[in-house]
Amino acid sequence: MMNFNEFKNCGLRRSLDILSGKWKPLILQNLFEEDQVRFVELWRKMPRVSKKVLSEQLKQMEGNHIIQRVEVYNFPPEVYYKLTDKARKLGPILDQLHEWGNDLDS
Amino acid sequence: MMNFNEFKNCGLRRSLDILSGKWKPLILQNLFEEDQVRFVELWRKMPRVSKKVLSEQLKQMEGNHIIQRVEVYNFPPEVYYKLTDKARKLGPILDQLHEWGNDLDS
Repeated sequence: MMNFNEFKNCGLRRSLDILSGKWKPLILQNLFEEDQVRFVELWRKMPRVSKKVLSEQLKQMEGNHIIQRVEVYNFPPEVYYKLTDKARKLGPILDQLHEWGNDLDS
Repeated sequence: MMNFNEFKNCGLRRSLDILSGKWKPLILQNLFEEDQVRFVELWRKMPRVSKKVLSEQLKQMEGNHIIQRVEVYNFPPEVYYKLTDKARKLGPILDQLHEWGNDLDS
């Protein structure tokens, strides 16, 4: 039997934990398409999600070090989000998952 | 803006939905290691999970067509679980996710 620490530290479990969240796949897809995205732009691209929920998901992703929050001190100040290098490495893996998900019906 | 149907059908979202669930990564890892596993064997390999919760996760995975429930009519009857061909295709992708998850600390 696996002990609880091994379970907690299992790489696959950790990856899936980080990627799981209703809006996270879509946030990732948007961020992969552009170098950096402003909060409001990102929000406009999502269907039916409140700003509050979007912020929460972004905060979790920031806590997991897969996105980075960048403040630009203009007037008014602007907030951008971008992927970290760690997250960029996920790109090819997410492409494969996307394809696998698209093939499910066939 | 993406419409709701596009969102619902997005391959990445569907894949991650199917894989998300507290015990699913571990169930998958166990099933990838062997051709088929009996319920009780699987349960013994998991840390701190009730049989009820394990059954529920297995049922969801069966509904998503990534595992298959096989009944063998011995006395007493035996129930095995095995991966579907669809799920077998996930193998290399899950390996990469596992590695990515393990590299997170470094």
